[in-house]
Amino acid sequence: MATGAGIIDPGRRLRTIFPDLRSYIAAGFPCADEYAGASPAFAWDEIVLSPVVPNPAMIIMAAINYFEGETKPTGAPEYPVLFLRLPASQIGHGTPLIRPRESRKLDFEGELAVIVGKPGRHIPRAQAMSHVAGYACYNDGSVRDWQKHSHQFTPGKNFVGTGAFGPWMVTADELPDPKGLSLVTRVNGIEMQRTDTSRMIFDVSYLISYISTFTPLQPGDVIVTGTCGGFGSTRKPPQFLSAGDVVEVEIEGVGLLSNPVIDEII
Amino acid sequence: MATGAGIIDPGRRLRTIFPDLRSYIAAGFPCADEYAGASPAFAWDEIVLSPVVPNPAMIIMAAINYFEGETKPTGAPEYPVLFLRLPASQIGHGTPLIRPRESRKLDFEGELAVIVGKPGRHIPRAQAMSHVAGYACYNDGSVRDWQKHSHQFTPGKNFVGTGAFGPWMVTADELPDPKGLSLVTRVNGIEMQRTDTSRMIFDVSYLISYISTFTPLQPGDVIVTGTCGGFGSTRKPPQFLSAGDVVEVEIEGVGLLSNPVIDEII
Repeated sequence: MATGAGIIDPGRRLRTIFPDLRSYIAAGFPCADEYAGASPAFAWDEIVLSPVVPNPAMIIMAAINYFEGETKPTGAPEYPVLFLRLPASQIGHGTPLIRPRESRKLDFEGELAVIVGKPGRHIPRAQAMSHVAGYACYNDGSVRDWQKHSHQFTPGKNFVGTGAFGPWMVTADELPDPKGLSLVTRVNGIEMQRTDTSRMIFDVSYLISYISTFTPLQPGDVIVTGTCGGFGSTRKPPQFLSAGDVVEVEIEGVGLLSNPVIDEII
Repeated sequence: MATGAGIIDPGRRLRTIFPDLRSYIAAGFPCADEYAGASPAFAWDEIVLSPVVPNPAMIIMAAINYFEGETKPTGAPEYPVLFLRLPASQIGHGTPLIRPRESRKLDFEGELAVIVGKPGRHIPRAQAMSHVAGYACYNDGSVRDWQKHSHQFTPGKNFVGTGAFGPWMVTADELPDPKGLSLVTRVNGIEMQRTDTSRMIFDVSYLISYISTFTPLQPGDVIVTGTCGGFGSTRKPPQFLSAGDVVEVEIEGVGLLSNPVIDEII
């Protein structure tokens, strides 16, 4: 748990019972109240943050999913466009994004990530929000040429070191409604994407209901809700990431995820 | 381990060290020789088979991927078409395929599955086959209308009870070359698909090398190598699966995977 002054560490006592955040979420955050107001065990500069959930059973990502102006983007389909990301592609806040040696087309996409708390299948939309444990920022780093090797996005969305997930989870009790939050992505401090989470085409409750039609949701699963315009490959001229760049995804009430970019070293 | 007479059970002794096949593969099949020729612990009708690997870190599937006649299928791209399946969608040999209540378009695709033995990244094609632990049959059951909800296949390829994986793994020492094997899919005993594994467009070594460019391969990962023509949605008239049907995928030297079809019960 985080405070302005540092990190409170319930793990000292709870880690033997709950080896990871996923199992702690599944148990419903037991004993969390006992740590409110406790003294930090670590200062911020003493720790390295993992991806918020390093080992989800599922990371499912919506593509596009934001209205531009008053209309849907060109080509936006009737249903959500969904693809899967592997946990091996994830990094935490502060850890470098890796531009692979096979490509010069590493791109950024700032998104709101939803972390599932309660399991379920065939979840009605009216009950969907009760399945949310919390929220974080996600940078859906995309290797555009590999994403376009075929009509399926899999390779370009799964390079090691491209899925930044952090800095932390804000729990749903602190953020009961994920609508109306500003979502901004910057590269080297320059704003590249800006939207408001109310502008999602398929909102969090819709995505939870739709996804749970085909697969059971499990605690720790991650639903990443898609991006708005302004990412690098759509800019004129296109603007891809290079070593030394710094990408920030900031969501109001959630946090600021920041990652430098490095070149892959073999 | 399987014999004609039944199942030898190394798990009695080894399960405390290797809780699942994935960890046993990762360790390189220790003590396996000791069980050759042992007496079966169970008869076939005493057991229910799980998916060969119930909990892979990755199940990555090639679409299409077989030459028809002397040419590539229409629209076959320059690179493999790859999508991901979630472990929650898998079933073992003999377990029913589930036709979901949301669709009347459950289809079959018989395929050769490759189970990864040795971890690796950036694997050269010439070394790729040394990363294979073994082979099994896969029925990539597909809910066609949900597969076509958008251009990404994810929903239609991830319904619970649609990925049949079995009946067992034939280890690579028993099957050193996965080429030239007949691959047949039948519905209610009637042949629907027939090809030969030499007719893959992107063969096993190519797929291992290509996939390991973007993500590390781990023991127990599953690479499913795609299907040939003849599946239900391409037939005239289209022929989808109904409750009571039985689908068989038989691969020469690997085995026969058989699953009945039931309707989802809510």
